[in-house]
Amino acid sequence: MLSKSQIKLITSLDKKKYRSKHQLFVVEGIKSIQEFLNSDYKLNLLFSVEDILQKNEVNTNLITEFELKKISFLSTPNCALAIFKIPEVKAIDHNSLVVALDNISDPGNLGTIIRLCDWFGIKDLICSTNTVDCFNPKVVQASMGSLCRVNITYLDLEYYLKNKQMKPIYGTFMDGESIYSSTVMNKGILVLGNEANGIGEEIEKTVTDRIAIPQFGNSRETESLNVATATAIMLSEFKRRTIEK
Amino acid sequence: MLSKSQIKLITSLDKKKYRSKHQLFVVEGIKSIQEFLNSDYKLNLLFSVEDILQKNEVNTNLITEFELKKISFLSTPNCALAIFKIPEVKAIDHNSLVVALDNISDPGNLGTIIRLCDWFGIKDLICSTNTVDCFNPKVVQASMGSLCRVNITYLDLEYYLKNKQMKPIYGTFMDGESIYSSTVMNKGILVLGNEANGIGEEIEKTVTDRIAIPQFGNSRETESLNVATATAIMLSEFKRRTIEK
Repeated sequence: MLSKSQIKLITSLDKKKYRSKHQLFVVEGIKSIQEFLNSDYKLNLLFSVEDILQKNEVNTNLITEFELKKISFLSTPNCALAIFKIPEVKAIDHNSLVVALDNISDPGNLGTIIRLCDWFGIKDLICSTNTVDCFNPKVVQASMGSLCRVNITYLDLEYYLKNKQMKPIYGTFMDGESIYSSTVMNKGILVLGNEANGIGEEIEKTVTDRIAIPQFGNSRETESLNVATATAIMLSEFKRRTIEK
Repeated sequence: MLSKSQIKLITSLDKKKYRSKHQLFVVEGIKSIQEFLNSDYKLNLLFSVEDILQKNEVNTNLITEFELKKISFLSTPNCALAIFKIPEVKAIDHNSLVVALDNISDPGNLGTIIRLCDWFGIKDLICSTNTVDCFNPKVVQASMGSLCRVNITYLDLEYYLKNKQMKPIYGTFMDGESIYSSTVMNKGILVLGNEANGIGEEIEKTVTDRIAIPQFGNSRETESLNVATATAIMLSEFKRRTIEK
């Protein structure tokens, strides 16, 4: 059963304003929900068309597919929808490589980057306050459960980089040194910039190591790489070197 | 001016059936259109809200923003829309690394992979016949102009790999050898598989070198990487090695 007030609450959670107000967000799909249940995240409500999660000893509210359609943010709803509590902010571990995002606006890109951080064992992801919210339903969906394994902190990135004295600060720029030949450490901060404008001017000033992914094609017209594919290549390079050392 | 028959033609081009019938496809946005005009692709019709492309000595049909909205496939139309002719299939150059896609279904993934091929100087991309069509408007949009610089051939991939005797054939599998330590050449075929099911069974049999991107995170629950980010890392590794040799 699904009450009117539950429908109102859940559908409001696509807006950051209401996620902040209620301190809740939506996770859809059995696999992702199970991963969040196995993590430190606290469940608030669980709706499912089948009693599939009984082993986890959580209360499933059985609903019809018609009801699920009313509350799902997906064009093809995926059996179950859960509401979790937004966790408290954890301290950032500065003893390993931290990824920082400056003004990433596309939810799909942020979700893909969270999934990459999880794959490459990056524990902390820092986001500028103008980066898209990681509890946005599209981000949660694109992160495929990885969101519950990466600690994400929103903060004033410019202030943080200027005052934290964390070095080195790697930044990706077209004119940077080739990532294949530059010296990288498994410590410090790797900054990635906005989809259209790259890293902002003030944040650029804090960068100690300008790095780039060399282009192998001949065309001058080729667009720079998408920020999520650039992150994939950068993290692969940073991590590969740490094995070889 | 925009005639009724032009509107009917253009809006029909989101379907493969009509693209094949007319041998035409749509490119939107000034930057992408200019890249296609500078390539071997032949223009059929060009519509724009401003006469921005006059230098290219092509006839621009000036239309209003209201008219552009009627024919655009974008939620925010981008000043200009052009119709180009689908080019004839060119021979595949087997003397360098060729990328082959087995049943890629997401237009955004195919567009991103085309953009990656362009960046890493991959001249030929082979697609199984059940891979999403590269002239689909969403693919053209995601490829950001790179489509005009990569030769794309749709063929029976299983038959091709079994009979072409092109070696090595690299395939990505969870149990493959680490890409960081395996021997790779700047020749042969790199096969990437479907988003949900990976490389199909029959195509798997043709693979001579099973490779993988090692996972650095600790979780067993982490999803495998998205096919576009996996392609990014694979191409970066293949190309990096060729510099260092």
